[in-house]
Amino acid sequence: MCYELYYWPTIQGRGEYVRLALEDAGADYADTARGKGGMAAMMKMLDDNSGTPPFAPPFLKAGSLVIGQTANILQYLGSRHGLAPKAEAGRIWVHQLQLTITDFVAEVHDTHHPIGTSLYYEDQRAPAKKRTAEFWNERVPKYLGYFEQLLSASGGAYITGRKAVYVDLSLFQIVEGLRYAFPKRMKAFERNVPGLIELRDRVAVRPNIKAYLESDRRIAFNEDGIFRHYKALDL
Amino acid sequence: MCYELYYWPTIQGRGEYVRLALEDAGADYADTARGKGGMAAMMKMLDDNSGTPPFAPPFLKAGSLVIGQTANILQYLGSRHGLAPKAEAGRIWVHQLQLTITDFVAEVHDTHHPIGTSLYYEDQRAPAKKRTAEFWNERVPKYLGYFEQLLSASGGAYITGRKAVYVDLSLFQIVEGLRYAFPKRMKAFERNVPGLIELRDRVAVRPNIKAYLESDRRIAFNEDGIFRHYKALDL
Repeated sequence: MCYELYYWPTIQGRGEYVRLALEDAGADYADTARGKGGMAAMMKMLDDNSGTPPFAPPFLKAGSLVIGQTANILQYLGSRHGLAPKAEAGRIWVHQLQLTITDFVAEVHDTHHPIGTSLYYEDQRAPAKKRTAEFWNERVPKYLGYFEQLLSASGGAYITGRKAVYVDLSLFQIVEGLRYAFPKRMKAFERNVPGLIELRDRVAVRPNIKAYLESDRRIAFNEDGIFRHYKALDL
Repeated sequence: MCYELYYWPTIQGRGEYVRLALEDAGADYADTARGKGGMAAMMKMLDDNSGTPPFAPPFLKAGSLVIGQTANILQYLGSRHGLAPKAEAGRIWVHQLQLTITDFVAEVHDTHHPIGTSLYYEDQRAPAKKRTAEFWNERVPKYLGYFEQLLSASGGAYITGRKAVYVDLSLFQIVEGLRYAFPKRMKAFERNVPGLIELRDRVAVRPNIKAYLESDRRIAFNEDGIFRHYKALDL
């Protein structure tokens, strides 16, 4: 089966967690909205008033299924491509971790958009500065400290042990994103999460991920995505 | 099996979506942190450095499983208690809807805490006012309009048709919460979502829900939860 991924064609955003899983799995997929007529096709599916219309991108067409919500897509792909544990308890656990990453990603977004997504960053600079300070003082230590602890207790190279799961790929993306958006803050913080940094390095050299990162399928970080670099927010 | 729910004992918060599912299902459960020694037990499980520690409440102990993240808990309970479709496609779909509700709930929270959860509302009144205006102008119409459209297309009394699923119970809670937090704004808005209001009424008289709402197991809304009533935020 050839999957069809639908996501905004010029950003990594939330679609990137799905792209990383598809790439690592070596799955056959089209990044539909980046192809000819793809944006029109995506908008048509979002405007569809019948069936199971997604609320927002990303969504994945898998045969007759249309699956929305990043963590939901990953749960579906994970069990089909060896990127999730086989037993139910393990699948529930990695999904739980992915939902915690989802929460963190929303908080990353709100560092530059604390007042609202319909306004420009330039119109919310002052609250963005305050929210970013709170994010780095309180939230980053709490979230990344949690994953660091899990990694040190896992007894293996990855978060659940010996085998990589989709959560490991998402944690790679979190480290990459924080490095891009907040290079100074992240540089100072990394000493607190050595296990997470090692995991990032381990994921980066997985053959399929390495090939993906070197390809033009990997969109560069930019200031339209979730992780945005604004000098004023990076001390 | 007697489930153990762990959640903050004095608020509805995110735990309420789980409580509503357990109550509607007539499941045997203890609202652990509201009992004697319950808070200490909850904090101990959060501080546990082994196994599968949850990032935050709510979490559910189900036999030997400890399941965190509201939508993850509901996914687990839904398929066991007739509150989710049996076929995989249907289960993926209702989980997707629940994750969209999760996103909405986070945005509700940020109306009174746009700068950060570690600060008091009183320290972020001005940005809260702006975020709330944006929330009601942009986000409420988008989210509730989406669910209204699904309800009108469902061909039944509930969001997926003839049978109630856990998403229906959560939508009931969304309407109740918005009515509590923003009575004036919600009163003006309700005419746009008649199907959602009918659904709310339908859920409210389901026998187990009705009994729950009249019991002291239902905690009253208050200004420590997700839905908070601040006059300045309700025009």
